[in-house]
Order: sequence, then C-alpha cells, then structure tokens
Amino acid sequence: MGLKHDTRWWGWGDPGEAADLGRGSEAFLKDRGILPDVAPEPPSLEAIVLPPPAPLPDSMVALVGPGNVHTGHEDRVRHAAGQSLLDLLMLRSGELDQAPDAVVAPPSDQSIGPLLSICADQGIAVVPFGGGTSVVGGVDPAKGRFDRVISLDLGGLKQFRLDRVSMTARLGAGLRGPEAERLLGAEGFTLGHFPQSFEYATIGGFAATRSAGQASSGYGRFDSLVSSARLITPAGELSTLTTPHSAIGPSLREIIIGSEGIFGVIPEVAVRVRPVPEVRRYEGWIAESFEAGSEIFRKLAQSGGLPTVARVSDEPETEVLIANASASGPAGRLLRRYLRLRGRSGGTLIILGFEGTGDEVGRQRARAARALRKGGAIRLGTGVGRGWEKGRFHGPYLREALLDRGAVVETLETAHQWSRHAELYRETGSAIRSAMASQAMNGVVMCHLSHGYPDGGSLYFTVLSSPGNDGAMRSWPVVKSAALEAIQRAGGTISHHHATGRDHAPWLAGEIGELGIEAIAGIKSRLDPEGIMNPEKLLPPLLVR
Amino acid sequence: MGLKHDTRWWGWGDPGEAADLGRGSEAFLKDRGILPDVAPEPPSLEAIVLPPPAPLPDSMVALVGPGNVHTGHEDRVRHAAGQSLLDLLMLRSGELDQAPDAVVAPPSDQSIGPLLSICADQGIAVVPFGGGTSVVGGVDPAKGRFDRVISLDLGGLKQFRLDRVSMTARLGAGLRGPEAERLLGAEGFTLGHFPQSFEYATIGGFAATRSAGQASSGYGRFDSLVSSARLITPAGELSTLTTPHSAIGPSLREIIIGSEGIFGVIPEVAVRVRPVPEVRRYEGWIAESFEAGSEIFRKLAQSGGLPTVARVSDEPETEVLIANASASGPAGRLLRRYLRLRGRSGGTLIILGFEGTGDEVGRQRARAARALRKGGAIRLGTGVGRGWEKGRFHGPYLREALLDRGAVVETLETAHQWSRHAELYRETGSAIRSAMASQAMNGVVMCHLSHGYPDGGSLYFTVLSSPGNDGAMRSWPVVKSAALEAIQRAGGTISHHHATGRDHAPWLAGEIGELGIEAIAGIKSRLDPEGIMNPEKLLPPLLVR
Repeated sequence: MGLKHDTRWWGWGDPGEAADLGRGSEAFLKDRGILPDVAPEPPSLEAIVLPPPAPLPDSMVALVGPGNVHTGHEDRVRHAAGQSLLDLLMLRSGELDQAPDAVVAPPSDQSIGPLLSICADQGIAVVPFGGGTSVVGGVDPAKGRFDRVISLDLGGLKQFRLDRVSMTARLGAGLRGPEAERLLGAEGFTLGHFPQSFEYATIGGFAATRSAGQASSGYGRFDSLVSSARLITPAGELSTLTTPHSAIGPSLREIIIGSEGIFGVIPEVAVRVRPVPEVRRYEGWIAESFEAGSEIFRKLAQSGGLPTVARVSDEPETEVLIANASASGPAGRLLRRYLRLRGRSGGTLIILGFEGTGDEVGRQRARAARALRKGGAIRLGTGVGRGWEKGRFHGPYLREALLDRGAVVETLETAHQWSRHAELYRETGSAIRSAMASQAMNGVVMCHLSHGYPDGGSLYFTVLSSPGNDGAMRSWPVVKSAALEAIQRAGGTISHHHATGRDHAPWLAGEIGELGIEAIAGIKSRLDPEGIMNPEKLLPPLLVR
Repeated sequence: MGLKHDTRWWGWGDPGEAADLGRGSEAFLKDRGILPDVAPEPPSLEAIVLPPPAPLPDSMVALVGPGNVHTGHEDRVRHAAGQSLLDLLMLRSGELDQAPDAVVAPPSDQSIGPLLSICADQGIAVVPFGGGTSVVGGVDPAKGRFDRVISLDLGGLKQFRLDRVSMTARLGAGLRGPEAERLLGAEGFTLGHFPQSFEYATIGGFAATRSAGQASSGYGRFDSLVSSARLITPAGELSTLTTPHSAIGPSLREIIIGSEGIFGVIPEVAVRVRPVPEVRRYEGWIAESFEAGSEIFRKLAQSGGLPTVARVSDEPETEVLIANASASGPAGRLLRRYLRLRGRSGGTLIILGFEGTGDEVGRQRARAARALRKGGAIRLGTGVGRGWEKGRFHGPYLREALLDRGAVVETLETAHQWSRHAELYRETGSAIRSAMASQAMNGVVMCHLSHGYPDGGSLYFTVLSSPGNDGAMRSWPVVKSAALEAIQRAGGTISHHHATGRDHAPWLAGEIGELGIEAIAGIKSRLDPEGIMNPEKLLPPLLVR
C-alpha cells in the first residue's frame, strides 16, 4: 500500500486545478517570443526508470511497521525531487538520477529516535521530507558517503496543542499550512504565515528553512514566530524551554531553526499565535518608479507603519501584472484607462494588505496613505488588491501551465540593508540579464521588494523565458550562478527565505566564511557524528570534516 | 602607568556619588532587623594580597605595546571580579583567591587576532572584559587548565559608524552605554538599551550576554537590536552579513550573541537604532494585587499595547518602594494619603513609560489606561513615574550604601510563559524564603514583572537581608541554589537577562540538556580548539570535551 497523494506527481498542486494563461498573458508572452508554438511532451510516470530499491534492515521495518515503509514506484518518484525549476524539468523529462530506496512515514514521533539510531548504525542516509516544496534541492535523496538513503516523510506528525493563556501552540511538523490555520482558526487564532508554498508546505519545513511569508512584514518571519523547538538527532533529543526568552548562551532555538535537516528531525515547534484579525483589507497603489516605491516602503518600515502585507513591483513586473490582469476581465482595461487619465503610462505597482480591528486598519491605512501620497503614489483602489489576494497562491499553478506550453519561470531572492538596496537590485538584475544573453535565453526579468525591516528589505526576482526544457536545464544553472555571484559581490544574502539546500551550498563559504562553516560542522559532529542526516545539504560536502 | 579609573575599586560607580538611605528606608530596614547597629570595616585596597603576576611572553608585550599591558596592583584587583554580591563581599573582605596576571588593553581590534594566537600557542587563558559589570561571574579571571590568565580589557574599542539610510550603527565593544547614547544622540538617534548597569556596561558586554534593559518591552532586548556581529576567535575571524535577515542555515549571529567570551572576542556589533523620541512620559498606577497587575500586563503585551517601559512590583516590593519614597520628601506621605482616600492600603505599583511622538504617546497612554482601569487599577499620576525614572540607575549605588552599613541586597531573575507565570512566582519566592529561613537570614523577598512578550514575561527577585558579610558569603549560595532549583522544576529559565557566567554554569544541563551542551562544545572545539577563551564560564568545565 502506498502513501495517499493529492497533488501532481510531476509538480505543483491539485491536478484538477489547472491555471489558465488567459488571453492577455498569452498575447504578452507571444509578443516577447516566450511561448513556443510547439508544446513539449506531457510527463509520464510509467516512463521513469528508477534504480531498484536497496533492501532495508528488518529492524527498521519492524520498528515503524511494514505499512509505513513504502517502496512503490510512485512513492519513490514523489520523494525524488522538490519543486525547483530543475526538479520540475527533471520529473517532466523522466530522467531521474536519484530516488530514495524507501519512503519511511512514521505515524508519530516516538519511533524517530530509534529509527535514526538504526540508520546511524547501518550507514543509511536520512532525508527529512515535509511538504516536499523546497526550491533549493533541500529534499534531494542524496546518499552522501552511504549506499542507501531513505526519505523520512513527516506528514503523519499532526499533533496540535493550544496554550490559550500564553497564546502559543505546539504544532506537529507534518501539518500543512492550511491544516495548521484550520486548527488554529477553530480556536480564534492565526499563525499568519503565508508563503507562496502555503498550501502544501509544512510546519517542520517552515522551521527547518527559516521560511518567510507574504504577511511576514506584519506577523514576522517564521523563525520569529517560533517560541520553542525540539530536535531529534542520531545522538539524542534536544529541546528548548518554553520560556519567551533566555539569556543563557548561544540560542539553541536559532541553531535548530534553519538546520535544514542536517542535525536531525524537527518533530514539532511551539509558535506564537494571534487572534484572527477582524478585518483584512488589500489595496493597490502605483508609484512613479521602483526607486520611488522602494523609498516609500523604506520610510514605512522605519516608522513602524509597514502593513501586514507590503510589496513593490519593479517596472517589468508591473507590466506583466497589468497584462495578466487585462486577461481576466475588464479590470486590466479599466486599470490602464485609469492610469492614462492620471497621466501615468507605466510606474510600479504597490500592494498593501492591512489586518487588525476595524479601528487599527483604518488608522494604519490613513498613515500609509499619507506616506504614499507624499512619495508621489496614486491609489488604485481595493480591486487590484483583492485581485492580488485572490491569486496569492496561484503562482505555482501558473508555472505548471507555462511548463506545459514550453515556457519556464524561476525565482531567486536576496536581501540587504537599505543603503545597499539600489546597488543590489541593479547588479543582480544586470547579472541575470547578461547571463541570459550569454545563453541566448530571451525573456523577462522582473523583481519585487517585500519583507520589510527597519534596516532593509528583500528583493525577489522572477525570470520568464523559453529556452526549451532541455535548454533550461543547461542555461538556468549559468543564470543562477551569475546572480548569486553578483549578490555576493554586493554583500547581499544568497537567500532571504528559500534556504540553502543543495543548490546554494557551494556559496555558503561566501555567505558565512570558512569559520562559519566550521562552527556549523562542529555542531553536526556532536549531534550527527556519523553524518547520516540530509547529506550534501547546507554544508558543502568537501569542506566538512 | 596603569589604566584610568573613574569608579569605586571595590564596587559600583563614581566614588563621589554616595546613596543616602534616607529616613524612610532606614526606619523600614531597622524595623525589620535588616540594618545592623555596627557597620563593617571599610574596604582597603592596600590590605589585599594578590599572588605575584606570572610573566607574559615578550611577543605579547611587543604586539600590543608595553603601555597597554598592566600588571599594577589596582589594575589587577579591578579585573579580579564582577559586580555580584559575592564579588563585592570578596573585594570588601580583602580576600581574593584569583586575579589576572596582567590586564591587556589593546588600543584597537587589529591586534586581537594575533594576541589570541599567541595565547593559544603559549597556553594562556583569556578573559574578555568590557565594563566588568557581570553579576554571574562572567569576568572571573579563571585559569581553567592553564597556569596563566590575562584579562583582555576592551575599553579601548570605541569605533562608531552610522548608516543613516539603513538606521544602523556599528558600535565598538568598549563603548559604555552613555557613550554610545551620546554618539547616537548627536545624530538624532537612540539605541534604547537601558539596563540598570547602563552607566558602566559596554556594547560588547550587552552582546556577549544577551542583555535586556528597562526599555526592552518597547525597543526589544539587545539581541534583537543586533543586525550583524563580528567575532575574533583563536581560529580566525567570523562575521555575519549586514543584511536584515537571511535564510541560510542556523543563525551565526545568534551563536555569537550570548557566547559570553567562550568562542572569542566580539570587537563590534551593528545595531538597529531609532530616532530619539520626541516625548518620554512615565507614570505610576496601583493595582489590587500582583496577580491583577500581572494580568493587566499580560493583556497589554498580547494586544501590542505594552509601552516602552512596563513593570509591576509585587506587594513586598511596593511596600519597600513606598517606604523609600516617603524618605525623599513629601511624595511618599502624599502617596499613602492618596491611596487611603481611594480605599487602598496596599496593592502593587505599576510603572509605565511611554515614548514616541506626542500623538503616539497620547494614543498609547489612552489605550493602556483603558486596560488598566478595566483591570481595577488606579492612576497615581506622573510624579511616581518621574521618581522611578530619576532613580532608575540608582539601585547599585544603594547597594553600596547598604553594604557599607552591613546589609546585603542581591537579585536573580527568570522568565516563563504566561500560563506558568503564577506558579513560577509562587515556587521561586517560596524556595527563596525557605532557604533564607534555613540559613537564619531574616529579610525581605520582593519581585517585579517586567520585559513583556506576547507569550510570557520576566520575574525579577530582590532579596534584602543582613546576615553580616561573612554570613552572606556562606548563606547566599544556598539561597541562590534553592531558587535556581525551584525555577528549573517550574520549567523557567535560569536567567532572562543576567546570562550564565560561572555562577549559572552548573545549571546549564538543566536548561539546555546534555546534548545542548554538546552542540555548544562542538562550536567551541572548532573556534577555540585549545580552550583558552574564558575558562569555566557558560559551559560546566567537567562536561566539556
């Protein structure tokens, strides 16, 4: 018996839910030569050839129960990759160079410690697997120096316990975003964590990767929501106190968070929750330029006036969004007519989302409006905001539709201080465009600013292109490398919220230095002495001793 | 030539500034038998006998310059202890069991790396020393397994660089609180970090110990103000990017912060700063009971309405504060008359401090007032608040005055989630009182709640007693141990803001577990392979390999 599945085996989301490119997007993409005339072959599960699974020790099967060890073809394929562009292209191509020997899905966290002991004893690599939504190769079934690897599916860990007085909740690692929100919502609370992967990503994954969400300007990144954490390692279990804070030494919580499975498994975390807001109000504004929009964003962030959701699209992203809006009805046409009337043909779109009591939302909106008008922005009204809200988790579906048609889309993101923001935007965008030109990839490079802090913000780049699927597998790594090099030259981080995984590991020394790697390797040497946990992720393999 | 000094060699503060106990306090203390009739002998610098200093390698003296290596009697005494009760009693008794062989005060951070290399090569222990205000033995010149130890005085590291656009500042480790505020204030900014040790404690110390201050409910604890940090270790230098946040792995910043000198030296940190507030307004309220006051505090913290400064004193602390106020003029008499008129003979004092623009302060005050009245509290007006503000850094001076008279005062603090707050308060207070009784220590045990978070708050206990100086050296460790055991039984942290040092190290395993200690020891093994950095602090010596 295999695991239950409710998503496309070859990519994102409910297979019954297909994104419509729409007339506007289609025209826009064709106009820029991004939509090939001939669509690629549809993916085929049966066509995938996997190496035969290596047998696992009887003791492991006895420990978790034979019904929880899955070696079927589909289960192995579904745990063979994450959701990066290269992952999706690989699944669609049918050529997988790796798959776990088995998917082990413990029904509770009781058996995880003994399971890791067996794996350490027998030399079996362990890859923790939550929602499988990593876009940086974080769930790749890499074997490291071992000859067997299991994917440890944590989807069964759905525990939930609310502490209403302290406004915290213990959440199992396997709860998906909507499951956690449903459990909390029934009690009147929300976690407020809404990354684009919300529908399928899990609590454990949020914690292991320092996830940030669309509402993180208001609620805070996931790492700041975690009040305590547990970690089950091959060397035993570690857990932090449930106190709100402590002055005792380096923060173990901040060592567990972001550990990306290389020390052990996070079976659950306690998080701070908040009352469900009475009012949620989204609205759109348009600023003269990305520079002007960014400046408004900075001032709001530094005066404590940034709303729950805040993003500023650059000119190319604004153009794409408007083209896309025009397809789904009269909104786009109205929007363009409105802008013409106000004397703006281009500009940059700003989306703001306000949450709280009616009074709070009113006060916040008035405050933001003052800053926006002072910065030369024009209000577009709530229609555009509602449109964004409606489509906020739609991106990955659109990507599937584009891939079906032979166009590719991929993202990367970074962050820096405000004083280096313009340089980071310019240099990263320029490096991406140059690398695309060197690879003869035509297309669009767009960007938005989001996740504001008093001292800086995050830049999120999206590339739309059509090098063909084979072409993309060769070209994208060149583009991504050029972007990461430009980011590191400018002093930005190689990831503000996608984590390190396997894809960013080669750049780790440039981010934290050789000695930073030593510090993390020092922890791993004590918690995972055999090195079975998530090989080749986070730490660059050659640098670890 | 010795170092320049501007404080009492035997304890806290400017020797020209003596605290007056005042008639009210004196009467209160005498009434409770806390003020002995005979004062102890005054301390004598000359009477202290230190072991002769061991000679240091010529290479070290050549590196930092002979004018920066101090081996004089007073310099060694001044770097022989921190500011805990036992430290002060030891200095006053003239019996020091330890002193550094030399005080090395590098004029810049250039020489620190080479200096640590020499110490690692030659087997010399290094104790980083900022303001020397540790109350947990953090600057004790412990030799560990070595036969020489230097105190590395970082007071010369006064660098300052403001990034006005990003609202961050790089601050040298040796800047004292008022120095940093002066530099920032000249540019229109404030750090907002005001622990009771503010006058003499340094930026490096704040970072190394996860300091929290009186305004941390508003500005955040020091660890949350740090945007990036550097660490110079015997194995090289580590520094984090100046980005506002990163999703790359465990947080190195959170490994440097709180490291208490055991990995290396923090030469500087970058911190988020804020505009100097237009208005600062302090006011006092009185609630029916500590329970009622705590509940008001919790509700404010959970609704985002907690002001910059917020503290609730329990009944015994309120009684002491009122007794003390009565001495300094008519304020106390008026206060008591006012309370009688309003039908309150006791109750608990709440101090709130609001900061911001005039509008913000007005709105915050109105919001807090609604919650306070709903919780049954009565406004005392701004006189009491101003009195608290005036005396906010006065506590350590008062302690010197009490010690001069033969009375002792010491503090300890903890934190927990709201759902365990009442239990933590009850059990810790009860353990302290029982232990005092077992030691025949009479006196007063008082407490306040401060440093609020949505999920919990900190409890700060103060003990006033007069077991005589010799008696206190025997009795206090018994009381402190009993308190820490009760705290750990209740699941609280053994320190919310005083750090670990030497005094709390034996309780570390109870806080973070044996595996947590292993994780930290794993880092230390890579950054300080010889183990020269701050021996016997943070990590319990016997548990480290």
